[in-house]
Amino acid sequence: MSGKLIGVGTGPGDPDLLTLKAAKAIAGADVVAYFAKRGNPSNARGIAAGHFRDGQIEEALDYPVTTEIHRHDHGYKSQIQDFYAEAAERIATHIEAGRTVAVLSEGDPLFYGSYMHLHVRLAPRYDTEVIPGITAMSGCWSAAGLPLVQGDDVLTVLPGTLDQLELQRRLSDTEGAVIMKLGRNLPKVRAALAAVGRLDGAVYVERGTMENAASQPMVGKVDDNAPYFSLVLVPGWSARP
Amino acid sequence: MSGKLIGVGTGPGDPDLLTLKAAKAIAGADVVAYFAKRGNPSNARGIAAGHFRDGQIEEALDYPVTTEIHRHDHGYKSQIQDFYAEAAERIATHIEAGRTVAVLSEGDPLFYGSYMHLHVRLAPRYDTEVIPGITAMSGCWSAAGLPLVQGDDVLTVLPGTLDQLELQRRLSDTEGAVIMKLGRNLPKVRAALAAVGRLDGAVYVERGTMENAASQPMVGKVDDNAPYFSLVLVPGWSARP
Repeated sequence: MSGKLIGVGTGPGDPDLLTLKAAKAIAGADVVAYFAKRGNPSNARGIAAGHFRDGQIEEALDYPVTTEIHRHDHGYKSQIQDFYAEAAERIATHIEAGRTVAVLSEGDPLFYGSYMHLHVRLAPRYDTEVIPGITAMSGCWSAAGLPLVQGDDVLTVLPGTLDQLELQRRLSDTEGAVIMKLGRNLPKVRAALAAVGRLDGAVYVERGTMENAASQPMVGKVDDNAPYFSLVLVPGWSARP
Repeated sequence: MSGKLIGVGTGPGDPDLLTLKAAKAIAGADVVAYFAKRGNPSNARGIAAGHFRDGQIEEALDYPVTTEIHRHDHGYKSQIQDFYAEAAERIATHIEAGRTVAVLSEGDPLFYGSYMHLHVRLAPRYDTEVIPGITAMSGCWSAAGLPLVQGDDVLTVLPGTLDQLELQRRLSDTEGAVIMKLGRNLPKVRAALAAVGRLDGAVYVERGTMENAASQPMVGKVDDNAPYFSLVLVPGWSARP
């Protein structure tokens, strides 16, 4: 009798933004697994820990990657593929033993989440369920109180890693936009927004729904310091009824 | 002493996909308000009703619009604007009386939600909080177990109301896509997907996370019957590490 894989979205940071379903799944699992950077606590574990039970097995899946290897380097790709394959086998061993394994995923598991790498390896083999979570972008526009898209608006989610002209092209061609992965891309993103006349109205949000969250209009964000997990919201809602 | 406005996301249908925060806010509110089509039960109320308390005031905000008026008609716009203004004043009266009003919103309040029309009218005047909810699209890709976007993928959310060439242009220019508002737009959406070689891989999802939810590959969805709130998921994830 095999167990079960459950991908559990923990939401963006506030433990109260777990769903009822996620809280039950975490409490009911035999094994709770989570990704973390080696030497760092897991954000997802921190959000969900209030629902852990005594006697549960914990599996910390520690990324092997160091900052010394560039992410487009062949060595990086090979190392991270091995890591996902090994992590999947560690989870598979538990499932084979009849255990239910909850894999915690910050935000939503199938939306830019590390869980996806386990899902594609394990869902074809085992009983699998995915419990959606509040995305970081949803947590951010709610914290900022910023209505994003309405009616027939198009929404585009963009990585800040795109080059400036590509950002400009896409920002000119959408009603609402979310720009993720800011970090050192902030000056380029600001320049792209300004070039297409969308700096006014854009809002910078830092640390989503954490306790120390902060949001401000992009026009007032004049320094270039942004954590990687900050983002910029560009409201659409072109046609209010 | 004024009360408070809380926009509460109820998620896409499964009552267990409410967040812990939403459940507390609903139970703690003096007034619970929700939109509905006149003569129909409110979906949001149905999802959240398990958290209502005895003695709470309920405010049903019934849309006045009938199918006899076209939505781009001037009469429609004027009627619906009056409706939102009146609904906002009904809520304002409670807040002025010191009550906390939870406005239920299916999915996420600031993401294509009716709550947005109250938010822009009331948030500048009163203490306001927005509690994000699981979006319909997130509920759908989780129910279908379909990894949608990863890494530097671009995601585009498109209304099925766009014309076919516009759909084709945008589907050719994105990694992941979600096409909402299917209904009678399904044949056009299918043709657009086929024209740009993205019919394979696309998944049709009906009734999101309701009890009678169903998903199937678009290639197998040969009939043209789709409820308005069905959607199509087009997975991105171009570069698996």
